[in-house]
Amino acid sequence: MNNPFFKNTGPFKLSDILKECSNHSVLLDKILKDDYLISDVKNLNEATSTDITFFHSIKYKDLAINTKAYACITKSDFFHLLPNNCVKIDTKDILLLTALITAKFYPDSITDINSYNLLNISEKFKDIISGKNTLVGPNVLIGKGTKIGHNTIIEDNVNVGKNCFIGSNVILRNTIIEDNVHILDGAVVGKKGFGFIPRNLKNFRYPHVGYVLIKKNSEIGCGSTIDRGSLSVTIIGENTYLDNQVHIAHNVIIGNNCIIAGQVGIAGSSILGNNVLIGGQAGISGHLKIGNNVQIGGGSGVIKDIADNSKVMGYPSKSLRNFVRES
Amino acid sequence: MNNPFFKNTGPFKLSDILKECSNHSVLLDKILKDDYLISDVKNLNEATSTDITFFHSIKYKDLAINTKAYACITKSDFFHLLPNNCVKIDTKDILLLTALITAKFYPDSITDINSYNLLNISEKFKDIISGKNTLVGPNVLIGKGTKIGHNTIIEDNVNVGKNCFIGSNVILRNTIIEDNVHILDGAVVGKKGFGFIPRNLKNFRYPHVGYVLIKKNSEIGCGSTIDRGSLSVTIIGENTYLDNQVHIAHNVIIGNNCIIAGQVGIAGSSILGNNVLIGGQAGISGHLKIGNNVQIGGGSGVIKDIADNSKVMGYPSKSLRNFVRES
Amino acid sequence: MNNPFFKNTGPFKLSDILKECSNHSVLLDKILKDDYLISDVKNLNEATSTDITFFHSIKYKDLAINTKAYACITKSDFFHLLPNNCVKIDTKDILLLTALITAKFYPDSITDINSYNLLNISEKFKDIISGKNTLVGPNVLIGKGTKIGHNTIIEDNVNVGKNCFIGSNVILRNTIIEDNVHILDGAVVGKKGFGFIPRNLKNFRYPHVGYVLIKKNSEIGCGSTIDRGSLSVTIIGENTYLDNQVHIAHNVIIGNNCIIAGQVGIAGSSILGNNVLIGGQAGISGHLKIGNNVQIGGGSGVIKDIADNSKVMGYPSKSLRNFVRES
Repeated sequence: MNNPFFKNTGPFKLSDILKECSNHSVLLDKILKDDYLISDVKNLNEATSTDITFFHSIKYKDLAINTKAYACITKSDFFHLLPNNCVKIDTKDILLLTALITAKFYPDSITDINSYNLLNISEKFKDIISGKNTLVGPNVLIGKGTKIGHNTIIEDNVNVGKNCFIGSNVILRNTIIEDNVHILDGAVVGKKGFGFIPRNLKNFRYPHVGYVLIKKNSEIGCGSTIDRGSLSVTIIGENTYLDNQVHIAHNVIIGNNCIIAGQVGIAGSSILGNNVLIGGQAGISGHLKIGNNVQIGGGSGVIKDIADNSKVMGYPSKSLRNFVRES
Repeated sequence: MNNPFFKNTGPFKLSDILKECSNHSVLLDKILKDDYLISDVKNLNEATSTDITFFHSIKYKDLAINTKAYACITKSDFFHLLPNNCVKIDTKDILLLTALITAKFYPDSITDINSYNLLNISEKFKDIISGKNTLVGPNVLIGKGTKIGHNTIIEDNVNVGKNCFIGSNVILRNTIIEDNVHILDGAVVGKKGFGFIPRNLKNFRYPHVGYVLIKKNSEIGCGSTIDRGSLSVTIIGENTYLDNQVHIAHNVIIGNNCIIAGQVGIAGSSILGNNVLIGGQAGISGHLKIGNNVQIGGGSGVIKDIADNSKVMGYPSKSLRNFVRES
Repeated sequence: MNNPFFKNTGPFKLSDILKECSNHSVLLDKILKDDYLISDVKNLNEATSTDITFFHSIKYKDLAINTKAYACITKSDFFHLLPNNCVKIDTKDILLLTALITAKFYPDSITDINSYNLLNISEKFKDIISGKNTLVGPNVLIGKGTKIGHNTIIEDNVNVGKNCFIGSNVILRNTIIEDNVHILDGAVVGKKGFGFIPRNLKNFRYPHVGYVLIKKNSEIGCGSTIDRGSLSVTIIGENTYLDNQVHIAHNVIIGNNCIIAGQVGIAGSSILGNNVLIGGQAGISGHLKIGNNVQIGGGSGVIKDIADNSKVMGYPSKSLRNFVRES
């Protein structure tokens, strides 16, 4: 992912980066070239040869094997799963160290500091039809033919495509919206995700450098919330419709032509294929992979991956056939 | 249902109406009187002898037998269930054709186009006690003694009764509210329902010509959403109380004296009797009939009709006795 | 609980108080000293020797035995569970009589009457960094270093600590917020709880005299709702994080260092210990006690107390081990 919105304050020397974690035991598997400049923190599959990455769960071993990262924050048990030429860093708290380093690169990404230099939309976009008390921030683009309601806040770092419809009381930040998208009243898109390192005296908030991408012809329902990614992008596919009061957590990727009914919740980093139908109030746990053409019955609780073309229902979800037979 | 709010651009000749679906195979069961004028699109039980209706599910056969509609969009398998004198139209996609025809009659009902000629409430209603930044649209009536909060948008096509209390950040449109109703902060009432014909390139949004009726002495909780009906009315009965974050989909009818706890969701077109109690987070599927005096335990998932005086719990819901015994 | 926000219009003579319920059969277990002045209505464990209290459920018998209240509204079956020197009042409708008496003491607590004398925040707090259209009521304090977004309404009876972050479209009333608390966009904190005595012609709204206390270093997610207590305080502990669209009902007490994921709902008067983790969409019934270090899986429905250090999942929730084995 490119980080189009957050300012990268790097590059930093790897030796300086590792000073972020003075109270952690960091072991390197080879001698550190002290002066090597690290340009960014990225996910395993997106890191280039000048980036640092992290590898904290065996779930991601296939990505680890192929990472191009210069260095990787992980634990010594995982060293053998990484390429030979990757500098391996052992720490007891992979996510905390990653968070601290990300915060060093992107100090503005930890909380949603409001922009305070907003303008009334009519001062900045004279050709956009919009309602009363609607505000826009400094880094906002709005395409032709888009209409916007009342009391809406397009805070900062937002590109809205052409012929979109944005309702009233909507809040947008760190979001790219393609053409013909509808965002209904009261939706909040692009806020930082619910990510932090739990510490009993004071949790450490994880930086959220990512953004939200809503592809063309989609619709986001009333009062729904879509959090931006931590290091990656939260994506709503083309022609995908979300009903009211849906919650999409950070890093989730939803495919094209999906239909997601009211009050559904999808936890962080889960990936859904195309043509997925989800009934009302269903929940999907984090870090799952839901295939193409999957149908998930209303009220289901999905706690493991689902293969293409499956129909499931229940809590925990099972095949629809079994659910019907047992009940 | 009369359509008090949306402008009917008809009548149209039946032959013209059927041109909406040039790429569908439409068969009539008798010779079409080419010049017959159709005045409206209505549900099976509300259509008069100048209206067109639709019949897409065997669930509604009892209504079909008695419909007074001049014509009915359906499939040939259902022809024998309709009255002899009803013109029967066969199509492979009943809902799409109905949607296209409804859109022809009511072109403004497909999306919620914001009204942009809103006024600050104090400019229009000098006697109503209200907060700051509260806006009202052109076709709005507000009864004596009603109080309204801050930042609330009463957009268009809203009648509010006497002695109501409307909170802050509320959005109302296409809604009739009787006397002594409380609508709490952040509720959104009267938006179009989550209805569309799925098409992979671009979903076809179904027109929502209906409205929401909230009967006297009721209360709608904070952040709740109530969608307006497609061809009919979404109704909240007298003295019925909804807690926070409840979602009521289009065409739902809720009886009198019901109590609906937080985060409950009721899918489209379900009908609830009087004195129904629903515990928190319960969900009710669409097109169901829930009797009078029914009690539904918190967290339940209701997927079939429930008889009068039943107590149910579970997912799928079963009798409370069985739920307790099995758990 | 002291009632820092609502005006107590008492004291009243006990004989006058009992006139509130002329159509209830009230029996006293000893001769009433007609002129005794009652100063307040409080819970069993908070009432002093000049207060009246109520005892309606056997769940609270341990509190009843030790109450210091001068008088107690209850039923004759429970008389033997109260101290000898407590005046016992028998009624067929304990909650209604308690509500009527509370309303006599606190006539302003039944509904959330908006404050209409709000000011733009910049008129009142020149040193607070805040956004556009943000309003504050008469009895509001805001600590140094706190930042507030746009369109937010801090209505009345709110103390905000130092270095807090309040987002946009937030509504606060009757709430005490300690230092370093984050309240995200669209949250509604401090509204009256969903409490009333059901009556078929018109429900009787229960007074909510309490407030919400959010302790230091906590975070309340986007679109979440936290209702204030009826006679007591709804408490969010230190360093406790709530995700988006969470609903916390009146009188709930949550301990320190808890993590509560998206769309969780906690019904009225439940008490959670410290270090409790709750997965997304889980629901907790009312009047339960959840111990310390408890983990509740996503989607669970908790309908009975949970001991310290338990891990549970399911609906109804069972031990995680059993849930996994059975599914």
